[in-house]
Amino acid sequence: MTAEGQRPARPKQLRFVLASASPARLHLLRQVGIQPDRVVSGVDETSDGSAAEVAAGLARCKALAVAEHTGGDALVLGCDSVLEHDGRVLGKPASAAQAVDRWHELRGTTGRLHTGHCLVSVARGQVAQVLERADATVVRFGTPTDDEIAAYVATGEPLQVAGGFTIDGLGGAFVDAVEGSHSNVIGLSLPVLRRLLAELGLSVCDWW
Amino acid sequence: MTAEGQRPARPKQLRFVLASASPARLHLLRQVGIQPDRVVSGVDETSDGSAAEVAAGLARCKALAVAEHTGGDALVLGCDSVLEHDGRVLGKPASAAQAVDRWHELRGTTGRLHTGHCLVSVARGQVAQVLERADATVVRFGTPTDDEIAAYVATGEPLQVAGGFTIDGLGGAFVDAVEGSHSNVIGLSLPVLRRLLAELGLSVCDWW
Repeated sequence: MTAEGQRPARPKQLRFVLASASPARLHLLRQVGIQPDRVVSGVDETSDGSAAEVAAGLARCKALAVAEHTGGDALVLGCDSVLEHDGRVLGKPASAAQAVDRWHELRGTTGRLHTGHCLVSVARGQVAQVLERADATVVRFGTPTDDEIAAYVATGEPLQVAGGFTIDGLGGAFVDAVEGSHSNVIGLSLPVLRRLLAELGLSVCDWW
Repeated sequence: MTAEGQRPARPKQLRFVLASASPARLHLLRQVGIQPDRVVSGVDETSDGSAAEVAAGLARCKALAVAEHTGGDALVLGCDSVLEHDGRVLGKPASAAQAVDRWHELRGTTGRLHTGHCLVSVARGQVAQVLERADATVVRFGTPTDDEIAAYVATGEPLQVAGGFTIDGLGGAFVDAVEGSHSNVIGLSLPVLRRLLAELGLSVCDWW
């Protein structure tokens, strides 16, 4: 055994920083064996543009804001998710009343959940590479009754999430189907992460 | 306040029994606010027929085997999942070597994950109603490298699950997309559960 500080650097020891406060994104990374540090960027989440532009732009802002203050060698991942529905770009509902109204509009319809991903490679405290990829997943909403919508909004869950719904929480029974990456809907597409890591010569398995 | 025994029976107090040892199914029920008891049926999981027939038949066997020994009032849910791929019906891999071979066949291809659901209503210890519904979700497998397949199988995860893959575990980065209910792939379609409960005049919200 050599002393801790003398071990050769291995890919699996690369620090992974999640530039997001989202418990769902943290859970997804842990699901695939990555235990990230979390640093919240404080980036203002208001933005204009198409759903894909908003998600990509905010993901980049979050990742770069955190990467600038990350020393040593690390990967910093920023993500942002918005729902595109009926020509509108929807973030988190502003109030319980708005969440109820939104669900009355969503039920029985289809939307597209866009998540922007920005992976920044930091080497010796400097931004070395910035990789970006956005993904969109079609979401087919179910038909919860008025009572179910009221009960769901009363749990508070819809107010915490882009589009006012989850597929990985209480809302899971109210979404009939998705078409695309389901983890993209939760907030971080795991197949996109795999591809971004591959561009850096890395694999999720390096963290196992 | 009336004494505990005098409270009127409310839907939310109905006992929910999961007739499955699957941690993933337990997690899905808890995700939508249902804390089930678990009773494992001991049903022999070998069966012939199409993927949909196998999944539906085993789900029914599991649910009825447990319902027969369930006293009082309860709902008993049995589920079974199999992967249909290239004309074959695939359950859990029999060995690590088979899991590796299977992943070499799966990568870059598409399969259909079938889950059978059987919800049995037990009233005063007797089977009152048997509701069944099967669902199939298209699964588009990613393209893990040989090294990633070897590392994945070495974790043991593929040996525990139908088809030898997960979307809610380490395998999540190796599945590019699904088309349909993603919880159906995990082992229990939450929108199907919602519909089966609705046929009994119930809602997942009754357990909140």
